[in-house]
Amino acid sequence: MNIPDSKKPRIVIIGGGFGGIALARKLRRKAVQLVIIDRHNYHNFQPLMYQVATGGIEAGSITYPIRKIFQEFRDCYFRLGHVRDVDAAAQVIHTDIGELHYDYLVIATGSKTNFFGNKEIERQTMNMKSIPQALNLRSLIFENFEHAVLTADTAERKCLMNFVIVGGGPTGVELAGALAEMKKGILHKDYPDLEINYMEIHLIQSGDRILNTMSPQSSEASERYLRELGVQIHKNIRVTGYDGRTVRTNSDLNFESSCVIWTAGVMGKPIAGIPAAAISRSNRILVNEFNQVHGLRNVFAIGDIAQMNSVAYPEGHPMMAQPAIQQGEKLADNLLLAISGRQMRPFQYRDKGSMATIGRNKAVVDLPSVHFHGFFAWLLWIFVHLFSLIGFRNKAVVLMNWVYNYVRFDREGRLIIRPYKKKSFTTFTTDEV
Amino acid sequence: MNIPDSKKPRIVIIGGGFGGIALARKLRRKAVQLVIIDRHNYHNFQPLMYQVATGGIEAGSITYPIRKIFQEFRDCYFRLGHVRDVDAAAQVIHTDIGELHYDYLVIATGSKTNFFGNKEIERQTMNMKSIPQALNLRSLIFENFEHAVLTADTAERKCLMNFVIVGGGPTGVELAGALAEMKKGILHKDYPDLEINYMEIHLIQSGDRILNTMSPQSSEASERYLRELGVQIHKNIRVTGYDGRTVRTNSDLNFESSCVIWTAGVMGKPIAGIPAAAISRSNRILVNEFNQVHGLRNVFAIGDIAQMNSVAYPEGHPMMAQPAIQQGEKLADNLLLAISGRQMRPFQYRDKGSMATIGRNKAVVDLPSVHFHGFFAWLLWIFVHLFSLIGFRNKAVVLMNWVYNYVRFDREGRLIIRPYKKKSFTTFTTDEV
Repeated sequence: MNIPDSKKPRIVIIGGGFGGIALARKLRRKAVQLVIIDRHNYHNFQPLMYQVATGGIEAGSITYPIRKIFQEFRDCYFRLGHVRDVDAAAQVIHTDIGELHYDYLVIATGSKTNFFGNKEIERQTMNMKSIPQALNLRSLIFENFEHAVLTADTAERKCLMNFVIVGGGPTGVELAGALAEMKKGILHKDYPDLEINYMEIHLIQSGDRILNTMSPQSSEASERYLRELGVQIHKNIRVTGYDGRTVRTNSDLNFESSCVIWTAGVMGKPIAGIPAAAISRSNRILVNEFNQVHGLRNVFAIGDIAQMNSVAYPEGHPMMAQPAIQQGEKLADNLLLAISGRQMRPFQYRDKGSMATIGRNKAVVDLPSVHFHGFFAWLLWIFVHLFSLIGFRNKAVVLMNWVYNYVRFDREGRLIIRPYKKKSFTTFTTDEV
Repeated sequence: MNIPDSKKPRIVIIGGGFGGIALARKLRRKAVQLVIIDRHNYHNFQPLMYQVATGGIEAGSITYPIRKIFQEFRDCYFRLGHVRDVDAAAQVIHTDIGELHYDYLVIATGSKTNFFGNKEIERQTMNMKSIPQALNLRSLIFENFEHAVLTADTAERKCLMNFVIVGGGPTGVELAGALAEMKKGILHKDYPDLEINYMEIHLIQSGDRILNTMSPQSSEASERYLRELGVQIHKNIRVTGYDGRTVRTNSDLNFESSCVIWTAGVMGKPIAGIPAAAISRSNRILVNEFNQVHGLRNVFAIGDIAQMNSVAYPEGHPMMAQPAIQQGEKLADNLLLAISGRQMRPFQYRDKGSMATIGRNKAVVDLPSVHFHGFFAWLLWIFVHLFSLIGFRNKAVVLMNWVYNYVRFDREGRLIIRPYKKKSFTTFTTDEV
């Protein structure tokens, strides 16, 4: 890879997510050379992906060109590419665009959906880990309604209007809420010739409460909110299979659904070349308190991919934006310490709390010392998310969309831009563009 | 197709573009049943497509859900489908979602790119007639720059940074201007390690002036503007082939380019079942002054697809939004007259003028009685386009983007959301999502 030689130590960052960007930003104008490699030319704001999938905002409003972030950096290079493996002995990575020597390597590749080895579920369910996946989901949701209008078979129509969300974490809960609000505010107007009451939204949670990483109070409030919106919550149930039509579970409960969204878990996405001893059960890369990968020199991992076991977090930190950002920022300091031959300082996670929105005026917030929900929680959620988006234009466009959606009870992004060609049991086909 | 029976006459409209929507809107709350069929579930605002392709605005900002337009209509049905043919004798259309009887049929299917029979050009060039095509073009533009960064071969780098636009109509001119502004304002900041001066933009026009449907003054001004922006204009030249690397012309001039955008012409896209005698040389459907298709009863055509020859327009009206909208509105009146057994009135095109924007503060405007260009032409262009967009939210979001882009000399939509897999001569590949 044609990165110019530099007298400064070269730090290669794989991944332009929350962790990678936080790290790079803190190294701006320091005496290092930065190379950022990502498979996409944009950073994306994962927490709002469900709004892209449900037409509330545009993909372009929660993504940001990575090159723009680095416009004013010196000795900093972005490369669009896919890393194949790392050769830690030679301090080299191999990619589809050539090989590259590093002085320090930071793996910030995030996570991928965990299907727990079930290939059928992997093939048949919809996911929401990337922007194209969110757009596919958006297409499928509206394609299903268009097909429901056409069929004379009531069972098939109900199947097309039945949404099953597997996983009661923030993604599943927020998506269920958004679908329920769409049913209430939009679909009966868009589809006057469809019995919108046929539409059902099922949220399936394997544990005994949803949002089980939050406080019991928040779980309870969010369950109440979802039930008020008409979402059917099924707890202590595991989905065991889905053939494209029937969702099978480990109970008597089965569902007929054309749209099953799998948000039941994430796992690491390590890079070939990391020793097996440094890979955890959940496929994350084991790191010490300095984010150093076990057993490797000058190789670090941060964010979802990194698992830093501690007394407080025996299975590593939660796979969310906050630990990634904090690790990225801390590692920036530590890399500068290491370069100057000084002792690195251990990372300490500061839990700022967590929150989830269920719908209009409805959110739950857990701060370290207080839990609350309702309108003010919802306002705080909006404020925090707007504030966290990169770029003034994104903030402004998202705010404008939210105000519009709120005032008009609407979401205008219900567009099937690229049809999602689901291998469907239905006989209907829609021609390609 | 399961459309409820109605005592009112059924008007079936094929196509939710400018013409179809204008027609349907004027028939709102009249004593007719409306069925609108389109292959997309959205209306799109074609005149701003080039801004989607160059990252100035998001696709969702110039598209509008068709169902939302019809939310408050009574006895009005939208169907997502593709019409296969029309059986005029039986008054039935056949579609991929079933057949449908009509009392009145309106064909408003628009136009498609005209490659003048050249299959190689059709296969290899980029087009901009649909939103997915505009998004593909956007992806290719930025993929080419990412590849240019990687190659050590200067000839290849130049080829990747060489843009050839074939066709000097409004689309080609506006696209050339947008690319030139991108070079000036963004690319040198995004790609500090690339010689942005290698980037060339060529506009090839077969005639002796660009914008040749506009006034000579406007052609002259737009040529001057483009040259000021660094666009190279080649007139009286026809492109005869493009193998994915070399653009061949009918002159000595050849170009090496990885991105050739074909805007050299459009043609009709008639539906099977229309008698051959009613199809014009440019594949449009010949209609009389009431937009009735030659030789058919109760079948009408409006917009780009309709060719209404007259003394003033011996080859039909220009294939633009205005004639489509005016024909749609007139046909609404005429259908009501026909239904009540009265005489229809002939369509008369009122040319409101035309305009094109070349860049920042630079546009040309031809009004019926006056031609002007410069800052006020540009303001008028902005005002007219904003005003014509459907929906308050779209207007607001587009305006906000334009203000931002203007103030910051920026376009933030430079995202490769779905990589465009060009069968390229380059050896670089980018993994799929």
